[in-house]
Amino acid sequence: MASNIPDIVISRLPVYLRALERLTQEGHEVTSSLELGKRLGISSAQIRKDLSHFGGFGKQGTGYRIAFLTDQLRQVLKIEREWEVALVGAGDLGNAIAHYRGFADRGFHIACIFDSAPSKIGKQSGGFVIQPMEEIPTIIPQLGIRIAMIAVPAEAAQSVADMLIGCGVKAILNYAPINLKTPLDVHVQYIDPVIHLQRMTFYLNDVS
Amino acid sequence: MASNIPDIVISRLPVYLRALERLTQEGHEVTSSLELGKRLGISSAQIRKDLSHFGGFGKQGTGYRIAFLTDQLRQVLKIEREWEVALVGAGDLGNAIAHYRGFADRGFHIACIFDSAPSKIGKQSGGFVIQPMEEIPTIIPQLGIRIAMIAVPAEAAQSVADMLIGCGVKAILNYAPINLKTPLDVHVQYIDPVIHLQRMTFYLNDVS
Repeated sequence: MASNIPDIVISRLPVYLRALERLTQEGHEVTSSLELGKRLGISSAQIRKDLSHFGGFGKQGTGYRIAFLTDQLRQVLKIEREWEVALVGAGDLGNAIAHYRGFADRGFHIACIFDSAPSKIGKQSGGFVIQPMEEIPTIIPQLGIRIAMIAVPAEAAQSVADMLIGCGVKAILNYAPINLKTPLDVHVQYIDPVIHLQRMTFYLNDVS
Repeated sequence: MASNIPDIVISRLPVYLRALERLTQEGHEVTSSLELGKRLGISSAQIRKDLSHFGGFGKQGTGYRIAFLTDQLRQVLKIEREWEVALVGAGDLGNAIAHYRGFADRGFHIACIFDSAPSKIGKQSGGFVIQPMEEIPTIIPQLGIRIAMIAVPAEAAQSVADMLIGCGVKAILNYAPINLKTPLDVHVQYIDPVIHLQRMTFYLNDVS
């Protein structure tokens, strides 16, 4: 199934899922492409087309059963299971990530945290003991971890990524403000707030 | 100039700029679409085409002068000036944002931080005094701020956004895991690590 779906469609599925989870929290049981579209600023036609890639989840006119569609999307995205994630970097950002409570219900669980600073090793962050970076080649294969988040300075990010990939990591969420060079079978996503801000200033008028 | 450029092109310009800044740090003075493409995993043809929207920045065969291209992109993105940004939310995430040192050189400066928790108000975060949320309607227009970052819980994000928009904010970077309803002239970008993780698990094989 995976091979034929455009990546742009895949990129929208987590957004649909998040909206469905929100609707459930609000007590809804049924929704429509129209309602989802209004919430997300996406056309209802686009939503129906995206979901049609995975077989019809709803019937024309009767809407989507939220619980069913949620389950289906979780299966498509492979998060009906829980994934263990490694976090590298325990500075301000790493700490905030370690304390973030939004992973648990959405398919992810931070299993270990690494840092290179001797002053941090052995301390706690978000309920985890920070481990030395040198333990990565031991711990990550041991736990069978294939997803990692990188929250180290830009200068260190590529060598950390190389080490993680050498240990079998196949998906990296990179918070360091640098593009990583990775093999084709490794997926990388980036979080850099400045990139998002710069993208918006283009549209601001110079009134102030 | 702004009106005819596809948003997908705009979205890549900050990525090009970041790569150019990195090349400068590394001591380079000249680059090429080929070199940029290799670093970014984007075809050189795509890069040349994107940059051609803004007039030719380089000559065929001689490459780009990095300093010149950097200046031009900063002007296009309107970050040759510095933008003041409001931060709402001083929890773990807000604190990490307040301490992040990557804004300063890239066009942004956090000018004020707000929170609703009485226990936080008056305390320092990243060199700023945390102000009560009720001060938003006074401080934001006073400082002429038009960009804000939201780092509050999902339940509070929409009402915070409404308040900010009412004060003239036109660009929001939302860290809360919820889609915001905003007027058409307000730009919103989202940062939600789980969305990025879920997008990658789709591609992982079930071997572990």
